Amino acid sequence: MMGVLSQQQLDQVCVVLVRARNPNNIGAVARAMHDFGFRHLRVVNEYAVPFATARSAVDASDVVAGAMEFDSVAAAVADCTLVVGTTAVGERALLHPLHALPEAAAEIRGALELKGRVALLFGSEKTGLSNDELSHCHWLLTIPMKEHEDVRHPSMNLGQAAAVCLYELVRETGVHAGVGVAAAAAAGEVERLKTLLTEVLEETGYTRRHPANSDEAQIRRLVLRMGVSASDVPVWMGILRQVLWKARGAEAGKE
Amino acid sequence: MMGVLSQQQLDQVCVVLVRARNPNNIGAVARAMHDFGFRHLRVVNEYAVPFATARSAVDASDVVAGAMEFDSVAAAVADCTLVVGTTAVGERALLHPLHALPEAAAEIRGALELKGRVALLFGSEKTGLSNDELSHCHWLLTIPMKEHEDVRHPSMNLGQAAAVCLYELVRETGVHAGVGVAAAAAAGEVERLKTLLTEVLEETGYTRRHPANSDEAQIRRLVLRMGVSASDVPVWMGILRQVLWKARGAEAGKE
Repeated sequence: MMGVLSQQQLDQVCVVLVRARNPNNIGAVARAMHDFGFRHLRVVNEYAVPFATARSAVDASDVVAGAMEFDSVAAAVADCTLVVGTTAVGERALLHPLHALPEAAAEIRGALELKGRVALLFGSEKTGLSNDELSHCHWLLTIPMKEHEDVRHPSMNLGQAAAVCLYELVRETGVHAGVGVAAAAAAGEVERLKTLLTEVLEETGYTRRHPANSDEAQIRRLVLRMGVSASDVPVWMGILRQVLWKARGAEAGKE
Repeated sequence: MMGVLSQQQLDQVCVVLVRARNPNNIGAVARAMHDFGFRHLRVVNEYAVPFATARSAVDASDVVAGAMEFDSVAAAVADCTLVVGTTAVGERALLHPLHALPEAAAEIRGALELKGRVALLFGSEKTGLSNDELSHCHWLLTIPMKEHEDVRHPSMNLGQAAAVCLYELVRETGVHAGVGVAAAAAAGEVERLKTLLTEVLEETGYTRRHPANSDEAQIRRLVLRMGVSASDVPVWMGILRQVLWKARGAEAGKE
């Protein structure tokens, strides 16, 4: 009685918990993963403690036992071609495209059909994902919730939010396309592109003239919005290297 | 951003917890109800203790505060026109029709449209609903889950199961556009971007070094594949103009 995803596709999904504080919540996320057949849990934590405690949770022990720990969001998503952040609407001014869960799940299933590895990020219980963490995301997902007049920031319990998202991913649905779309670049490649573009912006004086457009997260989002394919990465890298070579020549020429 | 149910319809749904043992789970169910706009919680307990403890839960306190206590399932569902039990498949020989959650939710929404009051029963964490309790149900609902060979009785955490069921009840079935998805750039803007990029490629020497990558149609396709939004066009134009200014400075410097 499972949804449209094969075990191989389930294994292309990484659930990434960023700064989760409560070991019970980490255990609950692992249990939901187990319930719906997902196996790859990644944890980005400042502190090792909550995760170590969660390791002793009784449920879904295979998911927790196999979990990987990372020092940064960048490292945790480096091999992923699609990085999706979860957020409560209204949490902050959104700088990313936002999809309600049903469409988001359809998009993610499309990426899985194209053999991409997808990271689904959940932030800390108190604060969600920071703007810097969100800057690693191609787009954001939100679970539509009731708006209560007395609550400024609606948000779900972490374990429940994960259960709802994973349920929607495996929920049986109709046909969806996605044929003929080029394979997306992995986040690590996008990050290298961002780094090279940043060098170009600095070398050409753009950063000095437009400081308001030039912080790291902005450049990362700009590059992510390019939606660059794996095969276009070397083309853009080649163009940027040539620009950099020329710009540095300009400096040398002046001297 | 709510689903197809009006508040009146949400209020026709009663979530009935039968012999829930863990106050945290009662609190979690109440929180999920609050998140999705449901307000009527009913509790059937042999012991008053867990519910009294749950009353002090911080989340969804209005739902818990308004909860009604009953001595029996019969009393708890007496005013309901449709009684649906939740069950994990394989728990026992099923004597009732069983629907997977997506169809079950559609059935329930149909009953709500006909002004019926619907009870959604969840059993105890350990044993689920007993045969006697199930006998009050018109039919049963199950959340499709992964079958694990090593687990005889797959079952979800109570709070997570409630969250998934209630999400499905309010899940928006129609398509709606993502909030904040940027408007695509017009073809004329993409063409201007292509022209400026071509100047950059010529000025930096890229065209001479990579003639095979540099014909006009290739550059246009490369730019089109960026899928650039209307709001990103001026950003990229600014970057390319700065690069061009620098590259021309390099020529001037050399002379």
